[in-house]
Amino acid sequence: MSEQKNVAIIGAGLVGSGWALVFARAGYTVRIHDPSEAIRDGFMQWAEDSVPELAAEGLIDDGAGVLARLTVCEELQQAVSDAGYIQESVFETVETKTDVSLAIDAAMSPDAMVGSSSSGIPASRFTENCRNRTRFLIAHPVNPPHLVPVVELVPAPWTDPKVVTQTRAIMEDVGQVPVSLTREIDGFVLNRLQGALLNEAWALYEEGYATLEDIDATVAHGLGLRWAFMGPFETIDLNAPKGIVDYAERLGGMYYNMATQRSPKPWDPDSITRAGEVCRQTLPESDLASRRAWRDATLTRLARFKKDNGLSR
Amino acid sequence: MSEQKNVAIIGAGLVGSGWALVFARAGYTVRIHDPSEAIRDGFMQWAEDSVPELAAEGLIDDGAGVLARLTVCEELQQAVSDAGYIQESVFETVETKTDVSLAIDAAMSPDAMVGSSSSGIPASRFTENCRNRTRFLIAHPVNPPHLVPVVELVPAPWTDPKVVTQTRAIMEDVGQVPVSLTREIDGFVLNRLQGALLNEAWALYEEGYATLEDIDATVAHGLGLRWAFMGPFETIDLNAPKGIVDYAERLGGMYYNMATQRSPKPWDPDSITRAGEVCRQTLPESDLASRRAWRDATLTRLARFKKDNGLSR
Repeated sequence: MSEQKNVAIIGAGLVGSGWALVFARAGYTVRIHDPSEAIRDGFMQWAEDSVPELAAEGLIDDGAGVLARLTVCEELQQAVSDAGYIQESVFETVETKTDVSLAIDAAMSPDAMVGSSSSGIPASRFTENCRNRTRFLIAHPVNPPHLVPVVELVPAPWTDPKVVTQTRAIMEDVGQVPVSLTREIDGFVLNRLQGALLNEAWALYEEGYATLEDIDATVAHGLGLRWAFMGPFETIDLNAPKGIVDYAERLGGMYYNMATQRSPKPWDPDSITRAGEVCRQTLPESDLASRRAWRDATLTRLARFKKDNGLSR
Repeated sequence: MSEQKNVAIIGAGLVGSGWALVFARAGYTVRIHDPSEAIRDGFMQWAEDSVPELAAEGLIDDGAGVLARLTVCEELQQAVSDAGYIQESVFETVETKTDVSLAIDAAMSPDAMVGSSSSGIPASRFTENCRNRTRFLIAHPVNPPHLVPVVELVPAPWTDPKVVTQTRAIMEDVGQVPVSLTREIDGFVLNRLQGALLNEAWALYEEGYATLEDIDATVAHGLGLRWAFMGPFETIDLNAPKGIVDYAERLGGMYYNMATQRSPKPWDPDSITRAGEVCRQTLPESDLASRRAWRDATLTRLARFKKDNGLSR
């Protein structure tokens, strides 16, 4: 099916732009549409700046070819009509996602699939009235998707299971790492795991056990190192002589006990204010953008490191 | 104080052995004692095998010098008597830690400091009857300490605050990343953060939202990448246009809502059994040791990557 090598990107902000590179570097023909003229006009310049950086790190082989496969379309319909797969990354409100999903629905081939980059709103809340609603699902990336490969695939109750299977195959084909959820849940897997850790981190900070910097250092120079290439289950599987069952027998009780010491609590407003002061003292608001660029450059080098060491998938 | 450059390692299993390298590569004179003759006899061979591997990755400059600074002592007293800092890493039961702490206490200089590698038992449970109990604290590393730099410093109620400050200075001097807790809490910071994430991971697995492999992939190819060089607070600080306060306003409610959907629950026995089957199918028990060696080799290369990219401290 030649359509499968034609991809549409609807919404070309930070997330959608990254998606465009993901598909183009894997050899797909990519048509990009954004409702904003300014974003449409800026896209190719962004791509021309980004592609050489990725090529320099060995993460793109044929930069000119990648750029040649990218086309910006003024109309949504132009981008969508020939696409086998459509990645939607528009502003995350139910209203916007509903409107854009209906527009995609009207223009798409009934054989096409539509993945939404939604990080929290499940597909059941904005695809119910689509004619092709069995072809819609969540395909939630981490930002930026061309540097962090995981993609959560979350079906709505009416999503055709074959659409999940086929989207998973496409994600593997383009070098992303798909993760399949069997059904919808708030926060999906990634943000539930992040949230559990964040809730505990905020509680420890509020109770004064350690400074913000030291809690961060515990992860950045400790806990996070193995998690950069092994998941939490494999980590504990290697941390007891006989593996994960042995670990659960030794330490499951301790972790359960910790859980019983906490009850759900909103993040403390005073702690948030203090944290904001600490963060802005280290990094003024005007430097946030350059720090994000540093983060992305670091993620680029880390992706190269993982590739060189056989740690990618 | 010349004593400060003399360090004693009491208990030379995996953790203690790593500690010996930490201090020796930083120029300290290290005396190692373990109650087991077999461990004492094996230590230098292990060091002679490990040092060239670290040198090959550029993590040790002068391998011969490092080895020359290591001495195995038959008696605990020989190791301890001249030491300015003593790192205890014996078997983690209250009884063993109590006995060994009392033996160290009897042999140490009253100016020395004693850090215990205890990963869970707080110092108040095994140092109360030490004459020099104000000089004892927890200095909890991640295994192996010569590859993962974080060290949690946790005082007992009677630990002299200056001992925490001075131990922190020593840890910084040897290139570790110390994290100071103001007081004792079960699991300290690192295992509380790990536990929060693990409890959620087990719940998602038990409820059938995703496979073990996919939950692991969510971290290893997504969530864990930024955490390998930035903590959870810095991560969210960069994930909203105006920083951490902005992030908390946008998403704090979502994370609180997730917390309200969970109540404390022991890890499910059936899920543990299933997880064990999945893990042993991928990696037979007989291959656990070689997989651990692979993990440590990968951590070594990651440490080098971080050093080369200015991501260490």
